Amino acid sequence: MSDQKSCSCQANLSNFAVVLCEPRYPENIGACARCCKNMGISRLIVIRPENPDWEKMSKLATHEAVDLLENMQTFDDLRTALAGFNYVVGTTARTGRQRRTTIRIKEVASDLAALSNNNQIAILFGSENWGLNNDAISLCHTVVTIPTSDFSSINLAQSVMVICYEIFTAMAANSVVASKLANTAELEGMYGHIKDFFAEIDFLNPENPDYWLLNTRRLFSRVRLTSLEVRVIRGFCRKALWKLKGASKK
Amino acid sequence: MSDQKSCSCQANLSNFAVVLCEPRYPENIGACARCCKNMGISRLIVIRPENPDWEKMSKLATHEAVDLLENMQTFDDLRTALAGFNYVVGTTARTGRQRRTTIRIKEVASDLAALSNNNQIAILFGSENWGLNNDAISLCHTVVTIPTSDFSSINLAQSVMVICYEIFTAMAANSVVASKLANTAELEGMYGHIKDFFAEIDFLNPENPDYWLLNTRRLFSRVRLTSLEVRVIRGFCRKALWKLKGASKK
Repeated sequence: MSDQKSCSCQANLSNFAVVLCEPRYPENIGACARCCKNMGISRLIVIRPENPDWEKMSKLATHEAVDLLENMQTFDDLRTALAGFNYVVGTTARTGRQRRTTIRIKEVASDLAALSNNNQIAILFGSENWGLNNDAISLCHTVVTIPTSDFSSINLAQSVMVICYEIFTAMAANSVVASKLANTAELEGMYGHIKDFFAEIDFLNPENPDYWLLNTRRLFSRVRLTSLEVRVIRGFCRKALWKLKGASKK
Repeated sequence: MSDQKSCSCQANLSNFAVVLCEPRYPENIGACARCCKNMGISRLIVIRPENPDWEKMSKLATHEAVDLLENMQTFDDLRTALAGFNYVVGTTARTGRQRRTTIRIKEVASDLAALSNNNQIAILFGSENWGLNNDAISLCHTVVTIPTSDFSSINLAQSVMVICYEIFTAMAANSVVASKLANTAELEGMYGHIKDFFAEIDFLNPENPDYWLLNTRRLFSRVRLTSLEVRVIRGFCRKALWKLKGASKK
């Protein structure tokens, strides 16, 4: 019943970069580029990629995200890559001993969004096999995790997607406009109309005439009708009543 | 440095199923299976997959999620696949005209989590090229979207990941019990009855007979009818039809 806006959001993630540490598969690098593009992140950095095959990367990136690959920076050394960043976020599925305390991304996303107003933030992802090593973890200001069911090994690009999605939505956390609902006068007019209709088809119990009306009210309360919808329902009742009364006169 | 705990959460998503409508690429089916496994969803259903190549699917699923592929159900017809489900969630990136109002997954995840305590919930994903068609959308109680930056085309498995992740984390966070809803078979029976009724009172536009029916579907989707309510509405239609036909014979 409506004309719809696009659901694309404006959120400025220009101070974020995704950093892939020793990624093994070019397909994953390409898929990460696409995720970044979906979530408005334009900086992709790779550290010692095992096989940065252009064909394989760009196929998964799709045409739309190929600019991220073209502008992708490659470093041999993580410290050098991170030099200009003010805040470094590690990601891990592992939370065993010798590891840092981790926090769920959902709990820190809005904090990261706020931090990014004044700071360059790098989000580090480890290799498909081993995750981030302890040296990389030691460079992180915080380490975040994605909660999972028993099977905790999430594909690299999927991890990038969830982390970037949480930050993007926290950044975008903008006001949603609710639709304008029918007012009480409109609703009561409609219920009056429905009552006439129910009476005409003998749908009211003489011993408890309000029973179905009350149920109808409860049902429509759950719908949160708009003014337009109330007019449509009244139009329907009018039509049905007209037909019933016309028919019975024959 | 070894013995690692997983950060796995306990959340029961046994009443959720992921339904892929006409997926093109076996790699995406496999990747979706892995996402489901990460997020504790054990039912994967495919409708008319273009090329369900086992090797390609199972490689992306990884050994850990191959059981989802083994138990995957395949259907030719979406209505048949959905018959036993009480609540159907569509997913879309498209929000152009003629499309339903969409809501962001983050806003409904905890509601879906609560509903799933008493109801079987299907989450529908369209094909990589076209998304869900209008017929599939008409079967949905609600349509959710993942907000993005300007580039809104998210890879199929990435969409499955984000949607399931939001539901999983919401499940892990709440424990509200919702009421038992009517299933798709009951609803479709009711819509058939309503159509007869509309036809009888000339409420269908001959040039676009589905117009009011589609609007009626949208309205009732928002109400989330119970089985009892569906029976009451059908009783009402029967009564009205009986009255109308009786009257017209006089």
